[in-house]
Amino acid sequence: MDQPKNSPLRVGVIGATGAVGRELLPLFEARDFPVGSLRLFASAKTPGRTLTFQREELPVVPCTAESLEEDFDLLFFCADSETSREFAPGAVSRGAIVVDNSSAFRMAGGVPLVVPEVNGAILDPLPRPGSGQGALIANPNCSTILMVLAVHPLLSLGEIRRITLSTYQAVSGAGTRAMDELHRQTGEILRGDSPTLEVFHEPCAFNVFSHDTPIGEDGLNTEERKIVLEARKIWSRPRLRISPTCIRVPVPRAHAESLTLEFDRDIEREHALAALKTAPGVRIVDNWQTNEFPTPRRASHRDDVDVGRIRRDPEDPNLLSLFLCGDQLRKGAALNALQIAERLL
Amino acid sequence: MDQPKNSPLRVGVIGATGAVGRELLPLFEARDFPVGSLRLFASAKTPGRTLTFQREELPVVPCTAESLEEDFDLLFFCADSETSREFAPGAVSRGAIVVDNSSAFRMAGGVPLVVPEVNGAILDPLPRPGSGQGALIANPNCSTILMVLAVHPLLSLGEIRRITLSTYQAVSGAGTRAMDELHRQTGEILRGDSPTLEVFHEPCAFNVFSHDTPIGEDGLNTEERKIVLEARKIWSRPRLRISPTCIRVPVPRAHAESLTLEFDRDIEREHALAALKTAPGVRIVDNWQTNEFPTPRRASHRDDVDVGRIRRDPEDPNLLSLFLCGDQLRKGAALNALQIAERLL
Repeated sequence: MDQPKNSPLRVGVIGATGAVGRELLPLFEARDFPVGSLRLFASAKTPGRTLTFQREELPVVPCTAESLEEDFDLLFFCADSETSREFAPGAVSRGAIVVDNSSAFRMAGGVPLVVPEVNGAILDPLPRPGSGQGALIANPNCSTILMVLAVHPLLSLGEIRRITLSTYQAVSGAGTRAMDELHRQTGEILRGDSPTLEVFHEPCAFNVFSHDTPIGEDGLNTEERKIVLEARKIWSRPRLRISPTCIRVPVPRAHAESLTLEFDRDIEREHALAALKTAPGVRIVDNWQTNEFPTPRRASHRDDVDVGRIRRDPEDPNLLSLFLCGDQLRKGAALNALQIAERLL
Repeated sequence: MDQPKNSPLRVGVIGATGAVGRELLPLFEARDFPVGSLRLFASAKTPGRTLTFQREELPVVPCTAESLEEDFDLLFFCADSETSREFAPGAVSRGAIVVDNSSAFRMAGGVPLVVPEVNGAILDPLPRPGSGQGALIANPNCSTILMVLAVHPLLSLGEIRRITLSTYQAVSGAGTRAMDELHRQTGEILRGDSPTLEVFHEPCAFNVFSHDTPIGEDGLNTEERKIVLEARKIWSRPRLRISPTCIRVPVPRAHAESLTLEFDRDIEREHALAALKTAPGVRIVDNWQTNEFPTPRRASHRDDVDVGRIRRDPEDPNLLSLFLCGDQLRKGAALNALQIAERLL
């Protein structure tokens, strides 16, 4: 509060060499984010690395209690939940704004879980980065972000009784090693060799499998339960019914989702189109003549979530279906985290 | 009727060099089908080819009115709809039993549309192959067969109010050229080249796209409409509500489908499991501990439809979800056609 808007910030990225961290650095530059100083952290397993930012080679240092002890205005946690649990609370108590991309604090009471276009207003009472007051904000799960962004504009059309969705999730959600695995296994199969398994328990090349997270007693895997609980929290609709099935597909970095929304009333396609057309972060790709609809390839390396196949069920006017694709690493992770920080400036 | 069961039949395969036709020949051998003589037909575009059957090289001749004029007991049409429309009725009138894998006659009144495990009984009044009396039987769409086979055992648990499904369809549904395209484009992308498009209008390698069939005024593509109309015909339930979304994935030959069934009553997972366990043609792959569920890779080159992720919605006991995989070329096409013929013997 005591500094002018967009004054340079002392920024740190934890998990800088990971799939999401690597996405964040070029976004700082592309979006002209007010980075004054930038410190990069990774696990002790990746020593001696450097990353380029603003044409400078920056060292990547191991993330430890000591290395994190300097003063930060803003920290992006892009590593695993354990790292966030270990280091994020201390950083907040030392006055940093932490945007946490892990699932560690998403469902914690009092921690805002934010898709800026949807519920960004809950950030308004929070301290600004650089004010010396810390705060912890959680970045939602990638599949949740994409779904919530595309469905949010439709909430004004009627009350949603249920969202049924099936995902087509890129391997990037499991990190850079998973992206390497897709590439490696694809080559192995093309050469007639057996695919070697390292990250996933099933071959990912030329295959499709149920999301590789544990199944609970409710029959949902962790990814599916995240979608249900996080979407309810973001929308403040604790009883909204969501029935997800999460499936991985051999795609490098953009997720797709097939959604059917059941409303409490008749929904016109034209009204849905109109609501989506003006929605921030949404691009309509819905050409019935040329069969041009969202694809992961088209959505990769782009900010928007593409939405198409928008149609009312021919026999049930309360049902609206759509198909969406969004870059899992960008809007599904790094971009959304950065937009949270931008909203706080 | 006037010959003993399993006496050798005069069999012809139209479209013998295509993805489905090539699958049929080894199935004749593996299932000990009573082939007396076998004639193979393909379009005039593939002259001079031969295929091996029972260690003999058989010529593949162009499919014409003349070449088809000899007497057949049984003809499998595995080419496109135009070929079936042109040649199937004449063959029937000359006394052949025609099993048509194309969509040409599936919805025609009086033409049985058959998944033998589901509605095979409607074949019982038909003439036997070799009786000299012809008949036309339609083989359903691949996605329809897989869905109907997995859902049929569950119909006894309650009245189904709606089936919502999203497909993960292999490229084999578009034929051998599409399978070659997936292979070729994958290599191109791995080498850093742009994928060349021949069969599909979107790159299929490392990508996912809405099924490449025309969208109608109802917003459904042809594949989706086939599932709705064919399933209703097979089950004789003309008002059953089905909401499909058909999507292609970079998988060579087995389809997957994510289904959510809404019943009129509370459904216990144990009852669904029990019904599926004894269902012919269904294999349960549903290990919650090891995260082992159906995959296209596991279902490829197998007869059964694999079913898993069988779960009741944690908050709506009337909803049952499941995930299935089945070989598109085998149970989705060639095997089902052969089972129809076997049922007639």
